[in-house]
Amino acid sequence: MRGELQVAVIMGSESDRETMEACIGQLEKLGIRSELTVSSAHRMPEATKAYIEEAQERGARVFIAGAGMSAALPGFVASVTAYPVIGVPLTSGMPSGVDALLSMVQMPPGIPVATVAIGRAGAKNAAVLAAEILAINDETIKKELKRLRDSWKNR
Amino acid sequence: MRGELQVAVIMGSESDRETMEACIGQLEKLGIRSELTVSSAHRMPEATKAYIEEAQERGARVFIAGAGMSAALPGFVASVTAYPVIGVPLTSGMPSGVDALLSMVQMPPGIPVATVAIGRAGAKNAAVLAAEILAINDETIKKELKRLRDSWKNR
Amino acid sequence: MRGELQVAVIMGSESDRETMEACIGQLEKLGIRSELTVSSAHRMPEATKAYIEEAQERGARVFIAGAGMSAALPGFVASVTAYPVIGVPLTSGMPSGVDALLSMVQMPPGIPVATVAIGRAGAKNAAVLAAEILAINDETIKKELKRLRDSWKNR
Amino acid sequence: MRGELQVAVIMGSESDRETMEACIGQLEKLGIRSELTVSSAHRMPEATKAYIEEAQERGARVFIAGAGMSAALPGFVASVTAYPVIGVPLTSGMPSGVDALLSMVQMPPGIPVATVAIGRAGAKNAAVLAAEILAINDETIKKELKRLRDSWKNR
Amino acid sequence: MRGELQVAVIMGSESDRETMEACIGQLEKLGIRSELTVSSAHRMPEATKAYIEEAQERGARVFIAGAGMSAALPGFVASVTAYPVIGVPLTSGMPSGVDALLSMVQMPPGIPVATVAIGRAGAKNAAVLAAEILAINDETIKKELKRLRDSWKNR
Amino acid sequence: MRGELQVAVIMGSESDRETMEACIGQLEKLGIRSELTVSSAHRMPEATKAYIEEAQERGARVFIAGAGMSAALPGFVASVTAYPVIGVPLTSGMPSGVDALLSMVQMPPGIPVATVAIGRAGAKNAAVLAAEILAINDETIKKELKRLRDSWKNR
Amino acid sequence: MRGELQVAVIMGSESDRETMEACIGQLEKLGIRSELTVSSAHRMPEATKAYIEEAQERGARVFIAGAGMSAALPGFVASVTAYPVIGVPLTSGMPSGVDALLSMVQMPPGIPVATVAIGRAGAKNAAVLAAEILAINDETIKKELKRLRDSWKNR
Amino acid sequence: MRGELQVAVIMGSESDRETMEACIGQLEKLGIRSELTVSSAHRMPEATKAYIEEAQERGARVFIAGAGMSAALPGFVASVTAYPVIGVPLTSGMPSGVDALLSMVQMPPGIPVATVAIGRAGAKNAAVLAAEILAINDETIKKELKRLRDSWKNR
Repeated sequence: MRGELQVAVIMGSESDRETMEACIGQLEKLGIRSELTVSSAHRMPEATKAYIEEAQERGARVFIAGAGMSAALPGFVASVTAYPVIGVPLTSGMPSGVDALLSMVQMPPGIPVATVAIGRAGAKNAAVLAAEILAINDETIKKELKRLRDSWKNR
Repeated sequence: MRGELQVAVIMGSESDRETMEACIGQLEKLGIRSELTVSSAHRMPEATKAYIEEAQERGARVFIAGAGMSAALPGFVASVTAYPVIGVPLTSGMPSGVDALLSMVQMPPGIPVATVAIGRAGAKNAAVLAAEILAINDETIKKELKRLRDSWKNR
Repeated sequence: MRGELQVAVIMGSESDRETMEACIGQLEKLGIRSELTVSSAHRMPEATKAYIEEAQERGARVFIAGAGMSAALPGFVASVTAYPVIGVPLTSGMPSGVDALLSMVQMPPGIPVATVAIGRAGAKNAAVLAAEILAINDETIKKELKRLRDSWKNR
Repeated sequence: MRGELQVAVIMGSESDRETMEACIGQLEKLGIRSELTVSSAHRMPEATKAYIEEAQERGARVFIAGAGMSAALPGFVASVTAYPVIGVPLTSGMPSGVDALLSMVQMPPGIPVATVAIGRAGAKNAAVLAAEILAINDETIKKELKRLRDSWKNR
Repeated sequence: MRGELQVAVIMGSESDRETMEACIGQLEKLGIRSELTVSSAHRMPEATKAYIEEAQERGARVFIAGAGMSAALPGFVASVTAYPVIGVPLTSGMPSGVDALLSMVQMPPGIPVATVAIGRAGAKNAAVLAAEILAINDETIKKELKRLRDSWKNR
Repeated sequence: MRGELQVAVIMGSESDRETMEACIGQLEKLGIRSELTVSSAHRMPEATKAYIEEAQERGARVFIAGAGMSAALPGFVASVTAYPVIGVPLTSGMPSGVDALLSMVQMPPGIPVATVAIGRAGAKNAAVLAAEILAINDETIKKELKRLRDSWKNR
Repeated sequence: MRGELQVAVIMGSESDRETMEACIGQLEKLGIRSELTVSSAHRMPEATKAYIEEAQERGARVFIAGAGMSAALPGFVASVTAYPVIGVPLTSGMPSGVDALLSMVQMPPGIPVATVAIGRAGAKNAAVLAAEILAINDETIKKELKRLRDSWKNR
Repeated sequence: MRGELQVAVIMGSESDRETMEACIGQLEKLGIRSELTVSSAHRMPEATKAYIEEAQERGARVFIAGAGMSAALPGFVASVTAYPVIGVPLTSGMPSGVDALLSMVQMPPGIPVATVAIGRAGAKNAAVLAAEILAINDETIKKELKRLRDSWKNR
């Protein structure tokens, strides 16, 4: 897809790739231009910050960050950009992933993270949420979302 | 504030009013036109649906729903509208509110709820998240958010 | 089995079929006429509502709804019908299913969901609970329940 | 109210009285004849069993049992009678009451307990659930439930 | 081993046999006369009560009861006998078994259950605890326990 | 009460005194000679060990240890003596006390701790459990326990 | 106390001051030079980073960071400095503070946070842990720790 | 590696060896002299105490203790030595290991345990934390840590 970047998807570790690719796949189905990057907030804070700022300049208007365990990445992204940040809690820590969920959702005043479900289900729904946000001012994406919702009726 | 409605805030019960008014207060500080409505998804599904559709027509582009216990309201709103829905888990059920958080965040494919922190802190950050979403295409709100972030630096 | 429908069993997703068929199987053993339907409260609220109303007209006096994750389906059914609704929490969300259990059991005033155990064990006991409810005014089912209880004594 | 007993409400300890009286109050509002008894399954198993059998003979068709901590009472009642048993988990053990909820809901095959929400909210909804069960064959209670549901529309 | 029964081990379901046989095995290693019985407190309360009373008469001075889910069996045994009752929480309900642990340990005043660890580890330690109790007045068992403790020193 | 010590009650901290005195009170009611000592397994391991050995020599046949947070005291006592050790989890750590309960109950092979309920309720039942253990060979205590159980019937 | 800084104590919010002052108080008792600073990793990442680097230059060899909710501060500190970082989980989020504990302790490879107990107890023990770390090469602090441990023996 | 021992790694059970060897491996990579010992605080308190004191004399300045279930070992080590003790919670008890984590982290005043993540990830990071502690006064280890951190930048 040509054109500016619309959604930047970041994950903290290579091991999260399979789950977060479900997010990219869903974004593509909705006709949204995205890219997937590995960048650790703890190991490479400077590089991660630089990437966020550069993605913003290339057009990113929504960020999606997947992380497990201490799950600091989405909050880190939200501290750098004022564009909406969607957090996907992953189960790399506790089996239930509730640890990552609680870490992600409990942000300080003024720096929210829009948290979705744990794991693959959340990764896919993060894409739909990004689409809903962009659709407010994008008729093409709005039509894609309508098509998605209409498809349920024929089941 | 004159002009069309921008954010519709809904809560399931009168007893949630104090918490959700913190959300309205924060929206006002950011110069966003909003309104607060009580409507139960379980007791008045038809009336709630009608309100969501009418709020949409009056300009609402982001919905914020606060709910505790089974916390079905945000998911109900998301099943009616394709605009972004932000969920605020409340502690009317278990003392920790984790029950409402888990109910709210775990939505089926295609119907995400952007979940924020539990209780008053979440109610206020839901307003900031709504502002971030609207700011993508609204320079006035963008400036308000910048002012908020700049205020932290002077501390 | 001929005659009117007695118990309508609904599940939110195709993936819940295997578990909920254990419910249907137990209902059949107890001589109760039932049917199993997939219908999502979030994706197809209108169709789900229509099904509930039509099942009621066809004779359903007890509803059983199985759901995982946000587990809104039993509450949705209970908001449509005043006949007893039995909820079966499923483990499609957290491994323990406690998330679905808490979502299902914590209903607003006036709209209870009779919640049973998580997963397959709950699905089967939901059938027995439905039988106990119908047996209050049905001697045939009462005899079946007595036969079940008597079978334990011979072990 | 004259006539046979319809619903027998049992609690394990005097300290549960205030919560369970909310159940009796709701039953009365719905025009259902009920009575509240203290009887411990652990301390007085024989007397508890005798009471259940006698209540059955006096007309009880639904049993409601409230209990906290190990919360064995509803299961005990369900082992004695084949009429529907509704369990109300109380918070006399852990602050959240999830311990009582899990104990109550996880019954062995063939002996379900219809579990409702924790504490006072559950106690009141247990009454509504009992009404829904009896209303299947009782037009007077059916009308009371309809009146309750209609009252929500005028809010 | 000849002589009177010393420890009666009861479990609620056939499916608990493998775990509880580890208890019997440990009792045998410590030279204690025991037997393993399946008896459900919910399905066969009368038969279970009769067994407990008869085991007492045959010499049982400590009871060990293993149970999962609502885990009512140890409490049931403790309501029948005033001899010490050891409870072994099993994982037939939630994966962690904490549900059974909490149900078992939270007994009403005057009817304690001596609860040990969840699953196989608990089943074996229940045997050691029974041995410690009997050893207070039994020099042979006291020597066996000393032998067990001495064996650790040579590692 | 004259005669040898029968039950030694130990607690890890002065702040646990009020709860553990309920244990001493219950022991006295049952006619059992006991004493309450503060001794930290972490701060004074040598002194705690010496106390346990000396209490044993003075007649103690059952030990009761109350502890919160990491709750190592009961396990420490059980590593020193082969007489039965009853653990009372206290809520000095997490509000629910489940942390202390899990720490106490999960002992290594051969060193069980007979765990009872959390807090004051557990402290009192620990006394009853100690009485049940001693009653196996003590007719006076046996009679006291019978009197306790008989008192329930007259309620 | 004159001389270089030894331990830098940071907290994410003014509301954490009372708890973290217990840490400073304990450090002073052990004769360690410390200072307490408020700095939010999310709101002022650059200023927080600058403070950590400057504190390092002024002599800080151990960092203590207290934080609640998403509790990102200790991990942020650990990503900036390779000196030991001690994390104190606070209860500003969930009542139990387990959310902050899990967030703090689950760090990515190579960036550990030495986590202590939740709240005030942890804040004080963080000071003792810092003392233990510095005492490896500081005879004065070593003597203070010995004095502390000796004081327990006289109790 | 020649020279004095620097870090003593202890585990409570042979079954923890595989996890704790990851700790030894990481210590070796950082050029630190360490050894791995099995010693149970409950089964062999005297021998464990003797080992800690002897390891101290052979040069150990940091102790790492891995334990699951009641997880008393790190606290036991900390009660014997005033050198820093790092605790690694293992999952031999509950599947999540939160039980061991809570037991380990909640130490009494004056006896902290520096707790890291659960399982293998924690075992490796315990080694890095030990390195950070020793590096305060050891230029060689400081260089190794710098090399580790620099390696992240080239990714």
